[in-house]
Amino acid sequence: MRTPSEVHSRRGFLRGTAALYAAGSNVEAQERATQQATEQAVAPGEVTRTLARYLVAAKPGDLPENVRREGVRTLVNWVGCALGGSKEDAVSNSLAALTPIYPGGKTTILGRREKLDPLHAALVNGISSHVLDFDDTHLKTVIHPAGPVAPALLALAEQQKVTGPELLHALVLGCEVECRIGNAVYPQHYDVGWHITGSVGPFGAAAAAGKLLGLDEQKMLWALGLAASQPVGLREMFGSMTKSFHPGRAAQNGLTAALLASHGFTSSEQAIEAKRGWANVLSTSRKYGEITGQLGQRFETLLNTYKPFACGIVTHPTIDGCLTLRAAYKLKPEQMESVELTVHPLVPELTGKTAPTVGLEGKFSIYYIAAVALITGAAGQSQFTDKLVHDPGVIGLRDKVHLIVDKAMKEDQTRVSIRLTDGRVVTQMVEHAVGSVEKPMTDAALDAKFLDLASVALSPVRARKVLALCRQVETLPDAAAIARAAAA
Amino acid sequence: MRTPSEVHSRRGFLRGTAALYAAGSNVEAQERATQQATEQAVAPGEVTRTLARYLVAAKPGDLPENVRREGVRTLVNWVGCALGGSKEDAVSNSLAALTPIYPGGKTTILGRREKLDPLHAALVNGISSHVLDFDDTHLKTVIHPAGPVAPALLALAEQQKVTGPELLHALVLGCEVECRIGNAVYPQHYDVGWHITGSVGPFGAAAAAGKLLGLDEQKMLWALGLAASQPVGLREMFGSMTKSFHPGRAAQNGLTAALLASHGFTSSEQAIEAKRGWANVLSTSRKYGEITGQLGQRFETLLNTYKPFACGIVTHPTIDGCLTLRAAYKLKPEQMESVELTVHPLVPELTGKTAPTVGLEGKFSIYYIAAVALITGAAGQSQFTDKLVHDPGVIGLRDKVHLIVDKAMKEDQTRVSIRLTDGRVVTQMVEHAVGSVEKPMTDAALDAKFLDLASVALSPVRARKVLALCRQVETLPDAAAIARAAAA
Repeated sequence: MRTPSEVHSRRGFLRGTAALYAAGSNVEAQERATQQATEQAVAPGEVTRTLARYLVAAKPGDLPENVRREGVRTLVNWVGCALGGSKEDAVSNSLAALTPIYPGGKTTILGRREKLDPLHAALVNGISSHVLDFDDTHLKTVIHPAGPVAPALLALAEQQKVTGPELLHALVLGCEVECRIGNAVYPQHYDVGWHITGSVGPFGAAAAAGKLLGLDEQKMLWALGLAASQPVGLREMFGSMTKSFHPGRAAQNGLTAALLASHGFTSSEQAIEAKRGWANVLSTSRKYGEITGQLGQRFETLLNTYKPFACGIVTHPTIDGCLTLRAAYKLKPEQMESVELTVHPLVPELTGKTAPTVGLEGKFSIYYIAAVALITGAAGQSQFTDKLVHDPGVIGLRDKVHLIVDKAMKEDQTRVSIRLTDGRVVTQMVEHAVGSVEKPMTDAALDAKFLDLASVALSPVRARKVLALCRQVETLPDAAAIARAAAA
Repeated sequence: MRTPSEVHSRRGFLRGTAALYAAGSNVEAQERATQQATEQAVAPGEVTRTLARYLVAAKPGDLPENVRREGVRTLVNWVGCALGGSKEDAVSNSLAALTPIYPGGKTTILGRREKLDPLHAALVNGISSHVLDFDDTHLKTVIHPAGPVAPALLALAEQQKVTGPELLHALVLGCEVECRIGNAVYPQHYDVGWHITGSVGPFGAAAAAGKLLGLDEQKMLWALGLAASQPVGLREMFGSMTKSFHPGRAAQNGLTAALLASHGFTSSEQAIEAKRGWANVLSTSRKYGEITGQLGQRFETLLNTYKPFACGIVTHPTIDGCLTLRAAYKLKPEQMESVELTVHPLVPELTGKTAPTVGLEGKFSIYYIAAVALITGAAGQSQFTDKLVHDPGVIGLRDKVHLIVDKAMKEDQTRVSIRLTDGRVVTQMVEHAVGSVEKPMTDAALDAKFLDLASVALSPVRARKVLALCRQVETLPDAAAIARAAAA
């Protein structure tokens, strides 16, 4: 099934690209840096080497504080998504296929009792983290950065000693590598049909795992070369389990690449930029300055975003408006006589279902979404259950939701007007929903999202423990503690 | 290092394409069938399904006798190459990386004592079989068909009961799928930079493994979909170990695809032909009739060829001429006063080294190659050792070899003239070397090649046993006997 976020993500988000850097702390400097990066001349044949050299030299202490903070948020969001997805069929089916082959596996599958070998654990945790389409997004490229990187790192942390700061550092480096290579080939590479998360993902995983393995420049080059030869993911797979397979397999491929390279398995030293290298074979356009410009100074990690709601982006302004009004007026279901949503035409096009009958269908009904948000005060994964779509109270309010389609509205705008039983009409105009670049999720909201997702697999006490470990990752002597605590 | 065969394979071989079908038993029928296949209209959206339906319905008994015979030859050649490559660094390094992770592995690595899990055993056996560049070639597409298929099948045969006829049938089906998809996108797909063996390989491995797993049409579609999202291999990697990684990883990817699909992991049902499917994303041209035309009637397996000599194709006519004269005149080294080779300009361009100092360099010296062939009566892997390139007898003859470069010669022609000490001059004109489409290797020559390669890893007795098992594959109740016998 094609979710609204998939169909819509690029069109809706790209408009915001110019504003993306404005969300950072030093707006103008970021804009200049990006511009320079794009224009910068790159020595021919030195793209991959420049990247490898940076990766080898980088140290955890080099990361600016705001980058480390965003890295922690990326980790929190990723672990939450992996726990939330851990009971889905895509995960259960892959475990059914793999556990008989790896009966003695010791590597954690988040939210599950089963264990696997490290390489397939990376695969399955990557599947789990993407299956709800709730994971992080680098909006400039629609890459989901953590999916291919974090599972490789956690798997490795259960194989060898990795400290929390080392894990966080490698996670940031992996995301940098993916997003920078993505920037270099976006949008052509995506437009032709590559699921960019899977096609750049092996580079990120190889870089991050290679960092933890302590690869030198030569071996890091080989790891990137092996990654280049293993792109994953066609957009044709969207709507099937194979979509979530992509970040998982990318994680596995990158980890394999780093492991082989660490044992002297040779590869190209110009894997990205060579005539028949990755960028020329997989894209018709290339901006190498995006890859090599301002390494260690400009951080794509700062542009990572997290979805607050477990449904398509197109519905987020509506949810934001409903939640704002509910909180401001302490609205109770019985107070609401009718709900009027003024929206862009894409909203009914993508989410026009009036009477959903199963939880997943609820995500495609703007009527249901508005009602459930107003009644429960949330729109997380827990709001899209079979039980809730049949709840009489929710159905009652759902049937009082009306749409006004207005072409003058922008895709990220919604006006929510609620007529109350006492005759008042309360209205909220939403310009940008929470979770957008302009209005990032707060740490508290991210933690609440984590706990909601984790509740699928863990007790509340355990979920809070895992959250605390993620939040305190920079103090952990052993990063594998996160994985161990996140097992069911 | 770029070997002559790599540089030269397309250019030299493609000229022979028109003649390829002529090598079959029913020349005109094959030519007509190919023509029809290319022109045939294919129902939109039915390419992948047509292939899946064929694969599911196909039965071992359906294969014509000549196809089964060629399948056996493909198996013999592949096992020989895997044994011959089993001591190479690419294999040792990958085992060094993987065996610590899979200490309890039970699946055979041909020619080695180490064992691995089935999926990584497929990877390493695939590496081993390609590392010498001595494996089979579908000349129309320069695909090495067995590399991605056979390792997946042997790994599976050690997991579940697979009879010899089932293994042979699956091998043929896998090769068909690869070569047909390759035909559909060749040469553009190869020209842009895909190592076609790795990019079509997952389809072949998924189809073959899926057949052994008994997938129904729905699951076979999913397996092909999962394969489509995992293409492997950039030509940039030629000259590094990653080149041989490609068929191995393709085998692993296809086997993974089939295993996941067998447990209900869903994927696209139009993975090959969809707008953002494999063929549109990875190639600028497509001939779908090549994939779906005359399934079960036209067999690409009949076009598979095997290299008789362990060096670049450009040297093969010279070797053929030398061996022919040696046998015809029972030549002894001391009888030969000088050797004159009349060759195409590419011969010195690619193999002009006059005094090689290590075994591998010998492959790039036409002087050494002619001398060693005349002295030993062979040009297998055993003729390219460090010891032999320093052998005084070989060096003595090597220095008596002279080239006459003649642009009028075709790339696959050589004239060998040897002046004998008694004043006679014996001459052999070679129009097509043995191993070409026009002059296939005999079964006896293939067996000799096998035994030479296998000697790297197995005792002569054991090597003969493995050869016998391959030759008798159609009588084996348990195909895993081949793998077990081929362990060191």
